[in-house]
Amino acid sequence: MSGKIFESPSERPTFSANRWRQPQKIALEEAITTSVFNPTNTLPETKGGAELPYVDEDYVVDVKNRLSNLELRVQAMDRAGVALTVVSLTMPGIEGIFDAKTAVETARKVNDETHRIYCTGKYADRFRALGCVPMQDPKAAAAEATRCINELGFVGILINGYSQIGDAETVQYLDEPQCEPFWATLEELDVPLYLHPRIPTPGQSRIYRGYEFLAGSPWGFGVETAMHTIRLIVSGLFDRHPGLKIILGHCGEGLPFSLARIDHRLRHFQPQHYKSKLRMQEYWERNFWITTAGVTSDTAFVDTLRSCGEDRLMWSVDYPYEDYDECGTWFEGMEMSQSTRAKIGWENAKRLFKMQ
Amino acid sequence: MSGKIFESPSERPTFSANRWRQPQKIALEEAITTSVFNPTNTLPETKGGAELPYVDEDYVVDVKNRLSNLELRVQAMDRAGVALTVVSLTMPGIEGIFDAKTAVETARKVNDETHRIYCTGKYADRFRALGCVPMQDPKAAAAEATRCINELGFVGILINGYSQIGDAETVQYLDEPQCEPFWATLEELDVPLYLHPRIPTPGQSRIYRGYEFLAGSPWGFGVETAMHTIRLIVSGLFDRHPGLKIILGHCGEGLPFSLARIDHRLRHFQPQHYKSKLRMQEYWERNFWITTAGVTSDTAFVDTLRSCGEDRLMWSVDYPYEDYDECGTWFEGMEMSQSTRAKIGWENAKRLFKMQ
Amino acid sequence: MSGKIFESPSERPTFSANRWRQPQKIALEEAITTSVFNPTNTLPETKGGAELPYVDEDYVVDVKNRLSNLELRVQAMDRAGVALTVVSLTMPGIEGIFDAKTAVETARKVNDETHRIYCTGKYADRFRALGCVPMQDPKAAAAEATRCINELGFVGILINGYSQIGDAETVQYLDEPQCEPFWATLEELDVPLYLHPRIPTPGQSRIYRGYEFLAGSPWGFGVETAMHTIRLIVSGLFDRHPGLKIILGHCGEGLPFSLARIDHRLRHFQPQHYKSKLRMQEYWERNFWITTAGVTSDTAFVDTLRSCGEDRLMWSVDYPYEDYDECGTWFEGMEMSQSTRAKIGWENAKRLFKMQ
Amino acid sequence: MSGKIFESPSERPTFSANRWRQPQKIALEEAITTSVFNPTNTLPETKGGAELPYVDEDYVVDVKNRLSNLELRVQAMDRAGVALTVVSLTMPGIEGIFDAKTAVETARKVNDETHRIYCTGKYADRFRALGCVPMQDPKAAAAEATRCINELGFVGILINGYSQIGDAETVQYLDEPQCEPFWATLEELDVPLYLHPRIPTPGQSRIYRGYEFLAGSPWGFGVETAMHTIRLIVSGLFDRHPGLKIILGHCGEGLPFSLARIDHRLRHFQPQHYKSKLRMQEYWERNFWITTAGVTSDTAFVDTLRSCGEDRLMWSVDYPYEDYDECGTWFEGMEMSQSTRAKIGWENAKRLFKMQ
Repeated sequence: MSGKIFESPSERPTFSANRWRQPQKIALEEAITTSVFNPTNTLPETKGGAELPYVDEDYVVDVKNRLSNLELRVQAMDRAGVALTVVSLTMPGIEGIFDAKTAVETARKVNDETHRIYCTGKYADRFRALGCVPMQDPKAAAAEATRCINELGFVGILINGYSQIGDAETVQYLDEPQCEPFWATLEELDVPLYLHPRIPTPGQSRIYRGYEFLAGSPWGFGVETAMHTIRLIVSGLFDRHPGLKIILGHCGEGLPFSLARIDHRLRHFQPQHYKSKLRMQEYWERNFWITTAGVTSDTAFVDTLRSCGEDRLMWSVDYPYEDYDECGTWFEGMEMSQSTRAKIGWENAKRLFKMQ
Repeated sequence: MSGKIFESPSERPTFSANRWRQPQKIALEEAITTSVFNPTNTLPETKGGAELPYVDEDYVVDVKNRLSNLELRVQAMDRAGVALTVVSLTMPGIEGIFDAKTAVETARKVNDETHRIYCTGKYADRFRALGCVPMQDPKAAAAEATRCINELGFVGILINGYSQIGDAETVQYLDEPQCEPFWATLEELDVPLYLHPRIPTPGQSRIYRGYEFLAGSPWGFGVETAMHTIRLIVSGLFDRHPGLKIILGHCGEGLPFSLARIDHRLRHFQPQHYKSKLRMQEYWERNFWITTAGVTSDTAFVDTLRSCGEDRLMWSVDYPYEDYDECGTWFEGMEMSQSTRAKIGWENAKRLFKMQ
Repeated sequence: MSGKIFESPSERPTFSANRWRQPQKIALEEAITTSVFNPTNTLPETKGGAELPYVDEDYVVDVKNRLSNLELRVQAMDRAGVALTVVSLTMPGIEGIFDAKTAVETARKVNDETHRIYCTGKYADRFRALGCVPMQDPKAAAAEATRCINELGFVGILINGYSQIGDAETVQYLDEPQCEPFWATLEELDVPLYLHPRIPTPGQSRIYRGYEFLAGSPWGFGVETAMHTIRLIVSGLFDRHPGLKIILGHCGEGLPFSLARIDHRLRHFQPQHYKSKLRMQEYWERNFWITTAGVTSDTAFVDTLRSCGEDRLMWSVDYPYEDYDECGTWFEGMEMSQSTRAKIGWENAKRLFKMQ
Repeated sequence: MSGKIFESPSERPTFSANRWRQPQKIALEEAITTSVFNPTNTLPETKGGAELPYVDEDYVVDVKNRLSNLELRVQAMDRAGVALTVVSLTMPGIEGIFDAKTAVETARKVNDETHRIYCTGKYADRFRALGCVPMQDPKAAAAEATRCINELGFVGILINGYSQIGDAETVQYLDEPQCEPFWATLEELDVPLYLHPRIPTPGQSRIYRGYEFLAGSPWGFGVETAMHTIRLIVSGLFDRHPGLKIILGHCGEGLPFSLARIDHRLRHFQPQHYKSKLRMQEYWERNFWITTAGVTSDTAFVDTLRSCGEDRLMWSVDYPYEDYDECGTWFEGMEMSQSTRAKIGWENAKRLFKMQ
């Protein structure tokens, strides 16, 4: 009996550091590598590729080790109070493969290995997985998505932005007509698609002229993925498939800051340029879920929360590029109601992914 | 065909005033008077009483007219996009009656008249009611609450703070032991209690010395009602009756600003002074719902929202002391997601009051 | 040469804890005791007194030690990056002395001892002081304030709320007419007055009935001090003395949450009840400065910042009741611009107190 | 004598619409056209050009009229409480001219006409101007900037993003080495440069594939201008010229949302990719000022304010693309201290532009 209402252990008897861990947290944008091929290399069939360019060697060594080290990952989860991690193949992954047939075969092998390592065996209760798909062949992607969900028990799909088609110069965005069969299947499967950034191809970063590393920086990743998202909305995709569920990381890739202004300006645009029926904000609240992966900024968080409400925002890390502990400490230190924290920490993810 | 994506009517063709009305809104802290007695008078059995003291005559005349004018009220609701108003007897109401027997009889008559005027007839689809109860006799209050819910179809109970007991000096707060039967019945009925401020009795405002009007100002109302709320929490009431549902108006009577600090300090208090098992914040999120009645401050709103999350906050007006249009314009002008606005505007009220 | 743009030491080579210390911080609401008398005892001339009531023994022992232990204080300042602490006599201090003559003599002795211990000798560069004054004799208080500023080099005055006058029942608030000579002198001296809470006298907490500890809790302190502040504004004091500078701790004692609503309601009040020319908000921005002493709540901070702007808010601790490290970590972890943090951390205090 | 403390005129005697106008406001990103050439046309020397593409005809007609109609502009300023407007040539303006010699001559003529119409005559007390410069010839740009400030009395320079050099495919960003003489002169003149977005050239929007209008939308403008800003910071420009003052519109073009994350990630980058000495945040607070032009989003505003503090944010409109009244109503309806509103509304602009 301490003589106090609440326990507050600290070095100084009468004060606490006011830090606690919520061990129920779920993390959603968490990268893995594979023995099948090197997914951090843009072009598996050619000799080049960026493979974590621009960053320092210490970082590369640390990250590469953690991409595949299961024990380090579980230890980090334990320290940070993370009950469950949803893993996915790191970028550019399958999307960086030039040849469609290779992409189809590689995706299948990667998904099988992911299932074996993370969804069975010692830590099966600590992991779920998002499947990868070969968008170079959208029908094959639809089939692989179906196999991931129905046979492997994966909880969704993750795509690293645009796909290479045949060479470094040609890319395919997900609003292009040939992707339609994939979207139809995804809507039918009723599982979320995580739209993740990717390392750009050289041709695309032409405008950076001497600052190509910006395209591979969080700013470039955000801009590229936000544009991809806007393309999806503008294309009418969500009128054709109102049941689609898209997840964006990094607090919505900057869109919460701009969404009101974009809708505000679209009042003046000719209708042929905006092929959808509703304002962007309405799709944002119907077809999108957002994670905090990679973000430790309070104002970005508040801005995002106001844009989508507390039922669509989900905490995440972006391990091993970011750190479980750093992101967890930030999240648990922000002031919000306990119910809001539980929603963002794990409840929204459970509901979206139908996990229990 | 306007040649624009979205309609934006305004005096200048290409701009809109960016104002809209959401006609589904529900208002919850909306006062009425009664022909049974003068509820703005503290002491019906004696000669004195404040009867809207301190405020100017224009205001008194306007407010008194609107307390009973059904047509003006419905017109104001229509203009402000309010579908439904939940009415309740204005303060101090029954709580200001000295004599218990008079209180019991008066409450019954007031509830019957409220039912007749607001819940039947021409505008029955536009109104719901909160019953008044004679807390001077807690068992009779329990019986009257039961009658209100089961026979009159009221959606909850509203109490204007402490009750006079016998004279101007003696008052009863709702945490006092004799109120227990009332709380047990309320928990069983599973309906919310709105804890509303009241005009203070002269004895209580002794410390204001020359500034008695402060006790009757929104600051005094907030302090008094916040203290009443803290008494309920500290007393252990919500451990004995975990199912109780309390509504506070005015953005939680200032408590969102202080709650973290109160819990922070309670770490150091001797346990005999805090009779409850959980931190205040935990009761706040389990037993309380908050309305914005009387508030048009963005930062107070944001502070409140963070304290309770978006599932427990409900828009309201405090008509006719405040204005439907002023409060509606403020609420609809604040930036938030559509889903959050719908929750706060009407969905949370519907769920709490089991309306539909 | 680490191969990185910025240094980021941490256990994991590629991540940092993102914590830093700004060693320039100034703390303003920092309590000391004295050998002259026991200032935590309400009534030095009588037998009773609360002397840190309600809180647990560990806390009392720890706090009492730190109130007078100079070395522990400097160590805590060093750890938390606090360059300078402005000390003041803890509550109720002089204000709790019944007899005016005793109050006058005691204040003088306390100020002399404070000067000797904190403003001269080993740590003179780490401390400044606020003087105490015997408001039981306002002219003597004016004289003592003058002596503190002009002879002892103190940077301001601190008053712990109302003063006892003669007995436990009789108190004097600072808006009362007899205080006028003190205010005139303070305006002429052009130094700030810190209006600090105090432990209440038993008579005042009558309305708590069984929850007297609430009056001595942060909620009760805030309410009492906010009411005192409103009395000052309503009384017309700041029209008579527009140059007065008042400091409030604890994020403005809850007033930022309510100020807009109070002004909003005062529209309807009879003019004889509000004796000042301007709205409360205008005095708030002209005559008040706010500290964060005792607060570690982000939303309370944001609310306060919006109410007064970044040139009037100042970080503080409330040592030893609160902890330098806890309050410093909170402040330095909140997201704001560097210029805003420097203003709140030390620049505003330097300007207000004319330090350098 | 109304019997009220404060006046509150409204249709209902006891309520006010709570709206007021602050007639001292200054607007800074306000576009004009010129009789010298058509500045909304990208390529004056060729046959094509966008000339307000994508938007509807009503909007184009309205905007084109208001770009040159002085009386409409002053009336709009009067209605919205704008004392002073700082005008500048609309985009792409001089930057869209292919031929350097033509650019030099045109800039001179435009500045002379701007001076004649806005800085002399009937409304000279209501306008100030930012000069345009021919960056196709940086030394000539430096000379023209000097003439604008020293001879015409302009208060700064505005540049619409990158400049065409010779043809549609070749562009020049302001961080390129040949721009150095211009920056040296600008630092010496000690006046701000407004870095404004521009309509993109076709070649640049290649990645939009079917969604070119996005490049000309507020999202595309923001991304392009943010990238231009990052290029300036990364290039080391502000280490070479620490006195430069850059203004960004549109709440900092989205950078407040991302700045913390960019700095957070730059920890891991190889130093050769980031040529500057300080973190981005430090340049942001030393070399940048931000306007709200084109923004009416509270959360974007709050995010921006936190990133730069209240001494570097300035209200603006973006007339005639946006509306004085709409932007003024938004700004004056947001809750902030009066001192903060005065700083953002006009005081910061006066200080930055040394007006008075």
